[in-house]
Amino acid sequence: MINKKINFKEKFSKISEHWSPKIIAEMNDYQFKLAKVKNKFIWHKHDDTDETFVVINGHLTIEFRDSKVHLKPGEMIVVPMGTEHRPIASEECEIMLIEPRGVINTGDKKNAYTQNSEVWI
Amino acid sequence: MINKKINFKEKFSKISEHWSPKIIAEMNDYQFKLAKVKNKFIWHKHDDTDETFVVINGHLTIEFRDSKVHLKPGEMIVVPMGTEHRPIASEECEIMLIEPRGVINTGDKKNAYTQNSEVWI
Repeated sequence: MINKKINFKEKFSKISEHWSPKIIAEMNDYQFKLAKVKNKFIWHKHDDTDETFVVINGHLTIEFRDSKVHLKPGEMIVVPMGTEHRPIASEECEIMLIEPRGVINTGDKKNAYTQNSEVWI
Repeated sequence: MINKKINFKEKFSKISEHWSPKIIAEMNDYQFKLAKVKNKFIWHKHDDTDETFVVINGHLTIEFRDSKVHLKPGEMIVVPMGTEHRPIASEECEIMLIEPRGVINTGDKKNAYTQNSEVWI
């Protein structure tokens, strides 16, 4: 896999639906995923891992139970393990997620957003 | 550490020297580091881990023994474990590195570039 550079813009062009992270790379047992998001996601947490959000285009808000964080392109946050959070974007936003292989997007919750398979783009 | 967003531009303003990655965040036992780079680094490899390069500003070339990759902002590459590589930037370039805690910047080599301490910014 040497010599395989990844261009975010080119990868985002392959994504249509919202809240459906697609894998673009692996580093050891961690994965890099891209997602387009819009409107409110669900409250959830990941009991076994931290989760990193990097904003590539647009604006993302992450609500915590007692605060919220607004992120713009060139900004990131690591949501600590076990912390309830809800991502929100009033307009479509393009983000990169970094987390261990096998993390479920809706964490401890199961609903229509829950992804049951891993998709590479 | 909830509610601690990280702004790359603000963090880069705290970096002056080249080839000296500074830690900006941790996710489980992985670290996010920013570095300003210019000119040629040394050939090295990391025998125990993959290593991720994300270009934030400028242009970065990563030479491998049999090929080279040119990266611009919005592009990344995961250099596989054990793979000899040499980063090069003809003009100053701002990059993010993602790798396990404790990785030495010069990998299997020791020279003047080798960092012996971890610095957070």
